[in-house]
Amino acid sequence: MNFTISKNAFYHGLSNVAKAIVVNSPLPQLSGIKIDVLENQIVLTASDSDLSIEHRLYLSDPNTKLNITEIGSVVIDARYLNDIVRKLEDDVIHVELIDGALVKIFDNLADFRINGMKASQYPKIDFSEPELSFTMKSEVLSNAINQTLFATSDRETRPVLTGVNFNYKAEDKKLVVIATDSYRLAHKTLSLENVDKDFNITIPRKALNELLRMIENHEEINISLDEKKIQFQFDHLLIQSRLLDGLFPETKRLIPTQFVTEIKTQMKQLVRAIDRASFIKSEGVSTVKFDIISDEIVITNTSQEMGSFKESISIDEFKGEPLKISFSSRFMIEALRSLNTLDVQIKFAGDMRPFLIINPNDESIIQLVLPVRSYD
Amino acid sequence: MNFTISKNAFYHGLSNVAKAIVVNSPLPQLSGIKIDVLENQIVLTASDSDLSIEHRLYLSDPNTKLNITEIGSVVIDARYLNDIVRKLEDDVIHVELIDGALVKIFDNLADFRINGMKASQYPKIDFSEPELSFTMKSEVLSNAINQTLFATSDRETRPVLTGVNFNYKAEDKKLVVIATDSYRLAHKTLSLENVDKDFNITIPRKALNELLRMIENHEEINISLDEKKIQFQFDHLLIQSRLLDGLFPETKRLIPTQFVTEIKTQMKQLVRAIDRASFIKSEGVSTVKFDIISDEIVITNTSQEMGSFKESISIDEFKGEPLKISFSSRFMIEALRSLNTLDVQIKFAGDMRPFLIINPNDESIIQLVLPVRSYD
Repeated sequence: MNFTISKNAFYHGLSNVAKAIVVNSPLPQLSGIKIDVLENQIVLTASDSDLSIEHRLYLSDPNTKLNITEIGSVVIDARYLNDIVRKLEDDVIHVELIDGALVKIFDNLADFRINGMKASQYPKIDFSEPELSFTMKSEVLSNAINQTLFATSDRETRPVLTGVNFNYKAEDKKLVVIATDSYRLAHKTLSLENVDKDFNITIPRKALNELLRMIENHEEINISLDEKKIQFQFDHLLIQSRLLDGLFPETKRLIPTQFVTEIKTQMKQLVRAIDRASFIKSEGVSTVKFDIISDEIVITNTSQEMGSFKESISIDEFKGEPLKISFSSRFMIEALRSLNTLDVQIKFAGDMRPFLIINPNDESIIQLVLPVRSYD
Repeated sequence: MNFTISKNAFYHGLSNVAKAIVVNSPLPQLSGIKIDVLENQIVLTASDSDLSIEHRLYLSDPNTKLNITEIGSVVIDARYLNDIVRKLEDDVIHVELIDGALVKIFDNLADFRINGMKASQYPKIDFSEPELSFTMKSEVLSNAINQTLFATSDRETRPVLTGVNFNYKAEDKKLVVIATDSYRLAHKTLSLENVDKDFNITIPRKALNELLRMIENHEEINISLDEKKIQFQFDHLLIQSRLLDGLFPETKRLIPTQFVTEIKTQMKQLVRAIDRASFIKSEGVSTVKFDIISDEIVITNTSQEMGSFKESISIDEFKGEPLKISFSSRFMIEALRSLNTLDVQIKFAGDMRPFLIINPNDESIIQLVLPVRSYD
């Protein structure tokens, strides 16, 4: 194995794949990045065994400044490989396997010799492409992820809720993207053309998190999936994630369709007021109370330990009955922030029933929050 | 207690004094900020009992927008007070003690009522000014702190080494500022006019750290001290710290005066090479070896676990014998970075003797590092 490569292109690839690596992996090989030098390209691979990322650097791409004189493979611990490459000063750096798994990484100034691991010890990762395959605009995909991901559960008691469910019905060409931690629910609907087969999969949060950071500035994302895994391909990257096992709960019946109170108000004042209210906490949790009268909401929050908060904000449109309702200020703020709107509509089905937070100009996204019982 | 105040001026004062507060203070009152409203000013106080900070907001200062309608005192937990004040939206906010220790903090939008503590429960802090008093330019003081503070010890086994020693002899008008963790030493010499009495004090690291962050943009610092405490005064701030007990070690005899090898080289290439070398670690520690020949230093670093590093840098001036010497790369980099110079001079007294790192254009600062034994 022997090649020279653009420092920046190499570092960029290493940083991309390193996102799959977890600290203190039970498999020590998985703390490394596998470098496969082929005749016409270099393949960088990293994995935590659930999420695997591959980045290819092609000889034909002048940005890589790649020159391959000997093929071969090795695995190097990501903790030092990335730092070493970043700190070298020359534009082009030289990487050479010199003995067993000892790798020489050098430029005109510095000479590192790093103990790697043999590539044969690295776990085999099956990157074969599943049959069901389609493309999505990255903006559409990242928007759907952004509007749902925060509502996933962080408890491992029901693993399937730690991911985001993508449920597609070919019949009506609709993809429904859902996340819920069972106290709130984010529900996004998208149109998907040119996909002829239903699917119903749940993608782990980590994969979507890393995907979000990487898909900026890319137009189209290629997606392939089967029952076990999903692949996202763009640029020279392949991000593959195992899917979560288990049936994602049927959530349609949770979304109320009849309402006792409907209001419309301005997003900014509402978010700011609830943000202020959220400083008042009881045992670390902030529960806010809305007292909705015809033209205003009186927002209060009381804690035995800390004190109390009160602020009134105006309502632009009001329909139905006055209502008192309490809920988690964090859930409300996260739901509101996901909507990207100046005006927000909130529809209440009763003081102990889930309520809906809606962008009046975008029906594709519904945020649902469960109220909490208030004892005052 | 009842006053209105500029939100920004109040928040600025609260942030300043809050720097004294430690998380989980054994005295719960010390997690609070004491607000004393006098007839012509408001005094904010916070303390961890070693470091105490006082900030005064004067009625006569138009920036405070202060309006006092009732004097009084209260203590409010800094964790929420600062956040609440920051998140209020109006320019001027209103603070009022309404019942016992319940404080109403409000503007035209929001209304907080916060459970405070009675000021009578707050520990008495003696802010009386010691007799020995002088002024220093803040730039001179912060430079002296910056060049020494990093060399303090972080071990509590010899508490006096966790501070910086300020030793002044009126006879020759010289202030010597020293920090050492017994593996390295930073030694700064300053001239001090108009001080007629010797002093020899050791100031805790935390006080100097906080002072450094606050003295930017101030011209002159007033310093007063006795054997027990030191006060720094500037702007409307008073920072008071207890001094460390115990005799600071006599360090003069540690600084070698005869040398076997003296070199001069360029700072930037040296720092960068040692920074690169520092990626190679053995059990978490990076020890670098210099092999000094007449016109170059061969820098190496070898670790059983990770591999090795080698880089040569040129020497501009060389005097004496070739030398091999090993040392902590972190100590070397910290010493080099403190010098603010393009060229650096290093004087070696032998392969197992401390060596000096010097700015050829500034004799006031000497950095000393102890070598480590190298086994290869």
